[in-house]
Amino acid sequence: KQIVLLPGDGIGREIMESAKAVLEAIAKKYNHEFTFEKHAIGGDAIDQHGIPLPEETVQACQNADAILLGAVGGPKWDTVSPNIRPEKGLLGIRKALGLFANLRPILGFKALLHASPLKQEIIEGSDILIIRELTGGLYFGEPRERRDNGNSAVDTLLYTREEIERIVEKGFESARIRNKHLTSVDKANVLESSRLWREIVEEKAKEYPDVQVEHLLVDAAAMKLITSPSQFDVIVTENLFGDILSDEASVLTGSLGMLPSASVRTDGVGLYEPVHGSAPDIAGKGIANPLGIILSAALMLRHSFGLDEEAKEIESAVNACLEEGYHTADLAIKNGHQVGTIEMTNAVLEYLK
Amino acid sequence: KQIVLLPGDGIGREIMESAKAVLEAIAKKYNHEFTFEKHAIGGDAIDQHGIPLPEETVQACQNADAILLGAVGGPKWDTVSPNIRPEKGLLGIRKALGLFANLRPILGFKALLHASPLKQEIIEGSDILIIRELTGGLYFGEPRERRDNGNSAVDTLLYTREEIERIVEKGFESARIRNKHLTSVDKANVLESSRLWREIVEEKAKEYPDVQVEHLLVDAAAMKLITSPSQFDVIVTENLFGDILSDEASVLTGSLGMLPSASVRTDGVGLYEPVHGSAPDIAGKGIANPLGIILSAALMLRHSFGLDEEAKEIESAVNACLEEGYHTADLAIKNGHQVGTIEMTNAVLEYLK
Ligand SMILES: CC(C)[C@H](C(=O)O)[C@@H](O)C(=O)O
Ligand SMILES: CC(C)[C@H](C(=O)O)[C@@H](O)C(=O)O
Repeated sequence: KQIVLLPGDGIGREIMESAKAVLEAIAKKYNHEFTFEKHAIGGDAIDQHGIPLPEETVQACQNADAILLGAVGGPKWDTVSPNIRPEKGLLGIRKALGLFANLRPILGFKALLHASPLKQEIIEGSDILIIRELTGGLYFGEPRERRDNGNSAVDTLLYTREEIERIVEKGFESARIRNKHLTSVDKANVLESSRLWREIVEEKAKEYPDVQVEHLLVDAAAMKLITSPSQFDVIVTENLFGDILSDEASVLTGSLGMLPSASVRTDGVGLYEPVHGSAPDIAGKGIANPLGIILSAALMLRHSFGLDEEAKEIESAVNACLEEGYHTADLAIKNGHQVGTIEMTNAVLEYLK
Repeated sequence: KQIVLLPGDGIGREIMESAKAVLEAIAKKYNHEFTFEKHAIGGDAIDQHGIPLPEETVQACQNADAILLGAVGGPKWDTVSPNIRPEKGLLGIRKALGLFANLRPILGFKALLHASPLKQEIIEGSDILIIRELTGGLYFGEPRERRDNGNSAVDTLLYTREEIERIVEKGFESARIRNKHLTSVDKANVLESSRLWREIVEEKAKEYPDVQVEHLLVDAAAMKLITSPSQFDVIVTENLFGDILSDEASVLTGSLGMLPSASVRTDGVGLYEPVHGSAPDIAGKGIANPLGIILSAALMLRHSFGLDEEAKEIESAVNACLEEGYHTADLAIKNGHQVGTIEMTNAVLEYLK
């Protein structure tokens, strides 16, 4: 299996080494062959090539079976022109590879749940999978421009039936292998695109009689995530609503630094990255939490390579380390041992032996 | 002062009587003259006139100094055509009167804070004013239509400089009389309209050197509202982001049924309504919480009539009732007395004597 590594910016560079070591350990143990190729993206690519997504990076990703990304962005590139900002690299690679489904599992670790901003009884038992459409909607619709000599600005929210169908199918398929409940989030009382979305969900629902479907307006969903997170199973929604709701959900468990994400398409190729950002303030200090990217690597094994056992092994190893009390500076565990990036990685590797 | 009452649907009809009684008590005590006129909106108007916003309602509102609304919508009208749904009444009246600024104060009552889904130490001290742009953006931009024989759908996010300037000014003015901190929320890393928004905020900031300005991406704002709500003062944002974030924020204090809102324009005319909905499941049972609309009436006195003392008197009366232990079924107070809509209203009136 050909894996492209895109460390990107800030702590992305340090934690990528951790993920690579874990994947190598798994390859050795289970006799798989993974080859790795490193390429530039984001600010790193701007520094080296003047643009956030060089053609050679796109090429390499197009030939890969899966891609692992660290993080992009940082204040260093805040002043570059909007067209070549680091984030454009991320948006560009999603679009270039057609990675239309962003999977964001929200699942707390027992040892860390005490750090949730929510009361224990509210967050307990929550296990949510947010599926966000990633290559359509306001992010890519045209026209997107200034008008009237720059005195007005327009963006376009456009969805085609095909775009909605494939993401909604992903939602139903995912619900089917989880707890058979799908919440479709839209703003059908205001948006035409949401009304098309809702119609398609209703149509598809007939093909999945075993899955219970609920429609929720995005404003109501933003409330319910806080008041009753444990009542969700799978949530499927369009690009911008998914951006907002998945970030909202990511703080509920109290350990954002642990959360992985996957951006996939139908043939299994996918890009995997931790939810946390490039954290420029702590970059290079050796204290970054590598568990988010390690768990992203586990998602890669599961979703792109079909290696569910190996994925579970990594997840158990991470859980075991936390139960032992190992944690990085961003997490707190009572009577635990605070460690740096390398020690945390070694602790995980120890469990994989 | 000419006040138009729009009870609307569900519990809107019952709680409107409470607000009217409170306004009458204030008028008597302070020697003001308020005249009331009742009109139909939402499902109520659909039933009576076939449309959710009859011309006579618009006319009456146009002649009024302020408008008080109960709530609109309910399952009864779920099957009417999208163009005449109850919500269209609300969207229509906002647009017809040019009520471009939606004010959503988020402030918990001490007696109720224990019901917050957030841990006490996180919600404590929070006092947020969300200012949402209400007559532009995706809600009204054209084109909004089906294309390709109905196989794609488009909505348009359009903002003009004038629309952004007036709401941003409202944000700065509000911050100036509060804690001098303004958070402008956008998605400037993706949307052209957000980049125009951010430019205008930067320009206006020069006119308000006493106000500290921060830009926050909408996804980050959705996170920070949960992790650090007490770090916000005034938030200003566009229509849809404001819809999502203000509903998210409305559950933080644990007593959604208490929250008021105002939709105003520059000359002081405004529409006031509780944040809660029409609650068709409990309509007609006499158990609805009237405090949200009573506090909305207080906002009306303050923002439309400049009667700050009278507004404060209502707010203190409500607080005193809660401290006494009075609460409706949607709230919980330890060792309190659960009462119905009329008793709760009478308790408030008692304090106003
Ligand atoms: C960096 C930004 C463009 C991106 C997005 O909004 O999609 C990020 O917030 C994400 O969710 O991956
Ligand atoms: C009913 C609906 C159209 C409305 C909105 O989205 O503006 C509501 O959610 C609100 O916030 O007042």
